[in-house]
Amino acid sequence: MHYSQFLHLIDIFGTAAFAIAGAFSAMERRLDPFGVLIIAFVTAIGGGTLRDILVGNLPVSWLNNSTAIIVIMSSALATMFFGTYLKHLQTALFLFDALGIGLFTIIGLEIAVQKEFSAIVCVALGTMSACFGGVLRDVLLNKVPLIFRREIYALACIAGGTAYYFLRRSALDEDVSKILCIGLIFLIRWLAVRYKLVLPRFYKQPELNG
Amino acid sequence: MHYSQFLHLIDIFGTAAFAIAGAFSAMERRLDPFGVLIIAFVTAIGGGTLRDILVGNLPVSWLNNSTAIIVIMSSALATMFFGTYLKHLQTALFLFDALGIGLFTIIGLEIAVQKEFSAIVCVALGTMSACFGGVLRDVLLNKVPLIFRREIYALACIAGGTAYYFLRRSALDEDVSKILCIGLIFLIRWLAVRYKLVLPRFYKQPELNG
Amino acid sequence: MHYSQFLHLIDIFGTAAFAIAGAFSAMERRLDPFGVLIIAFVTAIGGGTLRDILVGNLPVSWLNNSTAIIVIMSSALATMFFGTYLKHLQTALFLFDALGIGLFTIIGLEIAVQKEFSAIVCVALGTMSACFGGVLRDVLLNKVPLIFRREIYALACIAGGTAYYFLRRSALDEDVSKILCIGLIFLIRWLAVRYKLVLPRFYKQPELNG
Repeated sequence: MHYSQFLHLIDIFGTAAFAIAGAFSAMERRLDPFGVLIIAFVTAIGGGTLRDILVGNLPVSWLNNSTAIIVIMSSALATMFFGTYLKHLQTALFLFDALGIGLFTIIGLEIAVQKEFSAIVCVALGTMSACFGGVLRDVLLNKVPLIFRREIYALACIAGGTAYYFLRRSALDEDVSKILCIGLIFLIRWLAVRYKLVLPRFYKQPELNG
Repeated sequence: MHYSQFLHLIDIFGTAAFAIAGAFSAMERRLDPFGVLIIAFVTAIGGGTLRDILVGNLPVSWLNNSTAIIVIMSSALATMFFGTYLKHLQTALFLFDALGIGLFTIIGLEIAVQKEFSAIVCVALGTMSACFGGVLRDVLLNKVPLIFRREIYALACIAGGTAYYFLRRSALDEDVSKILCIGLIFLIRWLAVRYKLVLPRFYKQPELNG
Repeated sequence: MHYSQFLHLIDIFGTAAFAIAGAFSAMERRLDPFGVLIIAFVTAIGGGTLRDILVGNLPVSWLNNSTAIIVIMSSALATMFFGTYLKHLQTALFLFDALGIGLFTIIGLEIAVQKEFSAIVCVALGTMSACFGGVLRDVLLNKVPLIFRREIYALACIAGGTAYYFLRRSALDEDVSKILCIGLIFLIRWLAVRYKLVLPRFYKQPELNG
């Protein structure tokens, strides 16, 4: 199997993992089937959509990506019908999600690099591509976004994105660089979950007037 | 009266119905007059704005649509000053709203068809045009969006949009097709409210870790 | 010092004041450092981002504005490390914030004028540039936006923006007009806070069915 086929598989399974996680969140909030479908979509394509809008890649990419649409709809339907079975696949879903954020970070960063933004903006747009679907999902479900309180998720993307930003100028083959950085993001994410690593949160402080 | 004039009237009264519904929601949340105006706007133009952004129709259409702006501002002001009287028009407001979502679905779908998106994306963009203003309103008012828990609203748009997607290729006159499909959406919406039809919601399930 | 340098200083200090206010809100909600950084960013650039998207100025301007990015990141870090000291600067922060909304209103309005929108849309886009960062911040922190319940904030922008819309056609020097209108917005805001001026809010009303 070629590297690019491997990346394509990650894309599909990562998208599915995002959609399934979104559908579960929506079902936990007792939405109806239409709401579950929308939340699955927003979780899976929200990050890339925001990135496309900010940089001006319009129409946003998923509108012309039938594969993604079919994968998301099937994942949402499967979650609604076979939710209890899918829960036994938690480990697999975590793995796909962790690979997915790795790939989506790299994809977002590549698009930013082509538009010649500064290093910091490229890494930010990569991280946004991977993480912002979850933010939009939480906003629609009326929660404070989870990743603002569990930062090793975004931090993994920032680390892997920064590594890729510099590796892509090296002599290394492009696909190999990608896979290395996806691996790095995956590793950080796995370590964070395995050892329950979290950064400290701020204590509640008295309000600033004005 | 020509069909196109009829469609124009639906546009105006539908926009007003959306703005009035938004203004009432904002007043129920005890916002100030500025907040009520903004929520009326977002409810009326939110769906079309999101559609325009996603497909790249920028500047978004309402910025150049003085009629819509005047209709929305007048509706919001009327609701603030004469709210208690407007409540006696509940049935009329429901009718305009139901006609409005029909028209906005068709308008959104037409724009998507011109951009040559797939059938599923066209119907989705049509439904989004009609329904997303209410979603944004609920997000700004800090609620889980109502239509994710009352799906016959969006479902009516999906049904009517799908019908129009196929009818528009038929020998039927375009304006007649439009009016038939707006009627279909109206009918489904009316039946849903009349007979209190709702799809089942999901039960609360234990959380998925990760 | 030339007027334009003065405006440049307001830009930097205003952006910092927005970012610091955002960071404080995030810390009060007990977010982690990543969340605090994101909320600081959204508060500072949210209004201009929405304006750029609606009018089609893509990529949105802050992606190419390294100064703003550095100012926001430094402000967020400073707030996290020296928050308790910054609280002693409350008055200074209020002054910068009030000058900032003045400048951002004028900048947004200028962009709208160049695109030849109607007077009402120009003033609306100016006000949005100044006020919408705070709206997005509140949505992400899961609150009903504060400015929908404290209207003298947006009202000051509307008043100053309207004044500038007409002054810019007068014989007055452009930079002088700008500074006068920023002063007007500042004055209204200062009077509102000094004398605790607020518009009445609506009483809770019975819900509208449908």
